[in-house]
Amino acid sequence: MKSLDRFIRALRRLPGVGPRQAERFAAYFLRASQGETEEFIHALAAIKQDVKLCPQCFSYSEDGLCEICRDPDRDRGLICVVEDPQDIESLEKTGAYKGLYHVLHGAISPMDGRGAEQVKVRELLERVQHAQPPVREVIIATDPDSEGETTALYLADLLRGLVGQVTRIGYGVPLGGDIDYMDEMTLGYSLKGRTKI
Amino acid sequence: MKSLDRFIRALRRLPGVGPRQAERFAAYFLRASQGETEEFIHALAAIKQDVKLCPQCFSYSEDGLCEICRDPDRDRGLICVVEDPQDIESLEKTGAYKGLYHVLHGAISPMDGRGAEQVKVRELLERVQHAQPPVREVIIATDPDSEGETTALYLADLLRGLVGQVTRIGYGVPLGGDIDYMDEMTLGYSLKGRTKI
Ligand SMILES: [Zn+2]
Ligand SMILES: [Zn+2]
Repeated sequence: MKSLDRFIRALRRLPGVGPRQAERFAAYFLRASQGETEEFIHALAAIKQDVKLCPQCFSYSEDGLCEICRDPDRDRGLICVVEDPQDIESLEKTGAYKGLYHVLHGAISPMDGRGAEQVKVRELLERVQHAQPPVREVIIATDPDSEGETTALYLADLLRGLVGQVTRIGYGVPLGGDIDYMDEMTLGYSLKGRTKI
Repeated sequence: MKSLDRFIRALRRLPGVGPRQAERFAAYFLRASQGETEEFIHALAAIKQDVKLCPQCFSYSEDGLCEICRDPDRDRGLICVVEDPQDIESLEKTGAYKGLYHVLHGAISPMDGRGAEQVKVRELLERVQHAQPPVREVIIATDPDSEGETTALYLADLLRGLVGQVTRIGYGVPLGGDIDYMDEMTLGYSLKGRTKI
């Protein structure tokens, strides 16, 4: 069936979706009312239209600076560097961090030909150089895998001298783990137990 | 963020999708090109437009009778009754069945107020009554849960006398399975379904 096969192929492109889940999603849409389907399509079209990147931290934002960058109660002397916007939500849930963020949108991966210019590294350097008040500490919260480690060391080299100190979260996050999937407790510990690099 | 929250709510309606997976799906669409997003939307709109139910077996079909009902090599004297169209794909993969199917689109569940008229039971009875050649056997392959069992017993009562015989697929410990790790339900079924050796 041409249409169904084509939609299942489109669903398979979603991260982590295997053939069975794609079939279940297709069955959901086939059962859904026309109104539900239209709501889904409109909501999808709307994020492509409305969701931009915050010009300061590069997290998602629908209107200029994101909510965290706009929040006057956040500590502007602290920047936590993450790979993806979803990592922020996980870190926020710990309640252990009150500074700002910087989203790289990936990690440096020389094996995949992804260098510093493919992620928001230049933007981070410009940001800390012009930050007022100056940045006391940059906490690097890239994933604890080889790309995340490469990125952390690379950033630490560039940032030393520009900021008070550079730290890396470390305590509690298992090697090979994905920050996105980590529970709040583990992430809270890893923030408190961060070490200088 | 209004648009993003709204889309995540729409994603959460997909079967089995939790908050983390919904966020990852949203991130996928935000990263996707406009072309990829349009392809997804068009493929979704196309299944709503093109995919109908086969007028004989009620599986998905894009053009009158489905591929299985149209296939001259299938044994028309056998009908396997399943709850959902996806079940057909699983059974087809066994290569062990060469008859036709009948999709109920659910199971009878008096607790949820879902009676025989909410699923394709009447259509099954009409089908076997008018089948030419007559139906030798109806194999009931509803799920091995209480709703599936209720449905199987209900159908067996209605079908006896109309068809040569009514059978239920065997449920029990899967090949290569470990009795130690099997849940009580499965073991209960495997005991009830024991065969002479
Ligand atoms: Zn921001
Ligand atoms: Zn059919």
